[in-house]
Amino acid sequence: MNLQDELTQRATQFNDYWQQYLKKGTPEVLYDAARHLPLAGGKRIRPFLAMMACESASGDAAPVMPFAAGLELMHNFTLVHDDIMDHSLIRRNLPTVHKKYGVPAAILSGDLLFAKSFQAVLDVSVDFPTFKKLEHAFVNCIIAICEGQQLDIDFEQRKRVTEQEYLAMIGKKTGALFELAAQGGGLIGGGSPQEVAALTTYGAILGLAFQIWDDYLDMSSDAATLGKDIGNDIRNGKKTLIAVHSFAHANGKHKKVLDDIFGNRAATDHEVQKVYDLFVELGSVEYARQRAVSYTHEAKDAIAVLKDTPAKKLLHHLIDYTIQREK
Amino acid sequence: MNLQDELTQRATQFNDYWQQYLKKGTPEVLYDAARHLPLAGGKRIRPFLAMMACESASGDAAPVMPFAAGLELMHNFTLVHDDIMDHSLIRRNLPTVHKKYGVPAAILSGDLLFAKSFQAVLDVSVDFPTFKKLEHAFVNCIIAICEGQQLDIDFEQRKRVTEQEYLAMIGKKTGALFELAAQGGGLIGGGSPQEVAALTTYGAILGLAFQIWDDYLDMSSDAATLGKDIGNDIRNGKKTLIAVHSFAHANGKHKKVLDDIFGNRAATDHEVQKVYDLFVELGSVEYARQRAVSYTHEAKDAIAVLKDTPAKKLLHHLIDYTIQREK
Repeated sequence: MNLQDELTQRATQFNDYWQQYLKKGTPEVLYDAARHLPLAGGKRIRPFLAMMACESASGDAAPVMPFAAGLELMHNFTLVHDDIMDHSLIRRNLPTVHKKYGVPAAILSGDLLFAKSFQAVLDVSVDFPTFKKLEHAFVNCIIAICEGQQLDIDFEQRKRVTEQEYLAMIGKKTGALFELAAQGGGLIGGGSPQEVAALTTYGAILGLAFQIWDDYLDMSSDAATLGKDIGNDIRNGKKTLIAVHSFAHANGKHKKVLDDIFGNRAATDHEVQKVYDLFVELGSVEYARQRAVSYTHEAKDAIAVLKDTPAKKLLHHLIDYTIQREK
Repeated sequence: MNLQDELTQRATQFNDYWQQYLKKGTPEVLYDAARHLPLAGGKRIRPFLAMMACESASGDAAPVMPFAAGLELMHNFTLVHDDIMDHSLIRRNLPTVHKKYGVPAAILSGDLLFAKSFQAVLDVSVDFPTFKKLEHAFVNCIIAICEGQQLDIDFEQRKRVTEQEYLAMIGKKTGALFELAAQGGGLIGGGSPQEVAALTTYGAILGLAFQIWDDYLDMSSDAATLGKDIGNDIRNGKKTLIAVHSFAHANGKHKKVLDDIFGNRAATDHEVQKVYDLFVELGSVEYARQRAVSYTHEAKDAIAVLKDTPAKKLLHHLIDYTIQREK
């Protein structure tokens, strides 16, 4: 079983399915803006995770499809709004929504995707108690993402952030949605409380590994590979695990380099390189890589209780893939 | 029965109730930003409408309270985001959320209020089919509001807007939420299909009257009374019913005044006054007033089928109040 093939096949299946929530409409600019990012591609990892979680519990991923659509709509809504806040200009190799359609249409199209995400969840066929559980989890996830994004912004203004604070932040900003995907898949698949709990833990840890690997990739790839402005994180003073580790381990001379350049929006490419070199020298880039790797072991342990199924194998492959991907 | 006393009493009751959705939290700036507008007061007309609709059907407003909270949270979320798009600096006599907390926290706190609105709807105690009907209506209302706001923005860029286009726009931007309030109240109160339909129509028409009266007030009050920048609508080229009527009835000389000044953000107070005088001269201000009045008759007709109850009387008073209020 090849994960890449499975990912591609499931993504195609998912893309066909969620079209129903991404139809054109009027006013055109609103719907064009709302469709821009969802139709720009993406690996559909969260829908894939929900499918695998549901399949691991019930043997069938079909019932989770509307929920998976809700997850991906919600994910895209948060990206559209985040890009405004972060002044990001490129995503998925295309101009961001606010860059292409302006801030007002970007705010509104994010809100529209947000509303559509609930429309999708309403299409899930489960009993009322399960539905309420699902939707509470859905709402709580959005709240966590808002809190995480605000923490991320707050951290940029702060000189120092501890590793614990960083982990709490990405747990909300990124982990919560992976957690919800796995939990929702388990619930809709009718998993036992033990299975749902195992999947929930798996999702949360996968989210941490995913985010740390993302931060790691930002620091070890070029713009062509990543499709986003490299150096952004350094210029914005983004408190990634790498930066947090470097600040904690920098001596006086290193500290001065970090204090002078890190978070300086006008930093030159040469200065950005200097900080990057320091991140490597202090072992921070390697530290982040290792942390991501160790999370993958934890995630696998978490789902040891699941029945041995092809879906469970794919969940194993998914966690391996998380720390092997190059974009 | 005095409407003002009832409004005040119900608003107090409502304010006590929805506190549970407006607790402090961390990160503080996110929750402070989210609480800013909801706690800045407001007449709570939409919750009042939901209460009266529920009471007219069942004799009791208590079951509608979580839904009313959801409505008001949703209303506040749209205001927070709209103020960013409209560059508004003052609302309810206070700085707008983005003015006080910055755009990122304002976008996020709007998203948080959005999520909380669904949290509140989840607390409604009804059977599953009614719940789904309610939430579908809730989602569709948000979609309509997004569409209406985008139309409003689009209209500012256009030279001409027809009265029909204007009415469709405010029907979405403002009417949809009043419609939802009345419909939801009727559904939660267990009203007959005929009663729910009557309330729904009443709400939609009340919304139109309310918005037209708002536009009318903007053009006939001073900044101290309204708590917002007067002239904003003229400088932004806002296509109110008054402006739409004036453009439709302006002759060559008048058209030049409108074309030169209306929508010119740098217009002086004197120029704004000139446009205002033209609005009066062309009978547009009076026309808007009369349209609002005629909607009140339609709204009353719509609920003729309701049982004669104190709540129904209050719905009559509410529609009268809509076109008597001075802020």
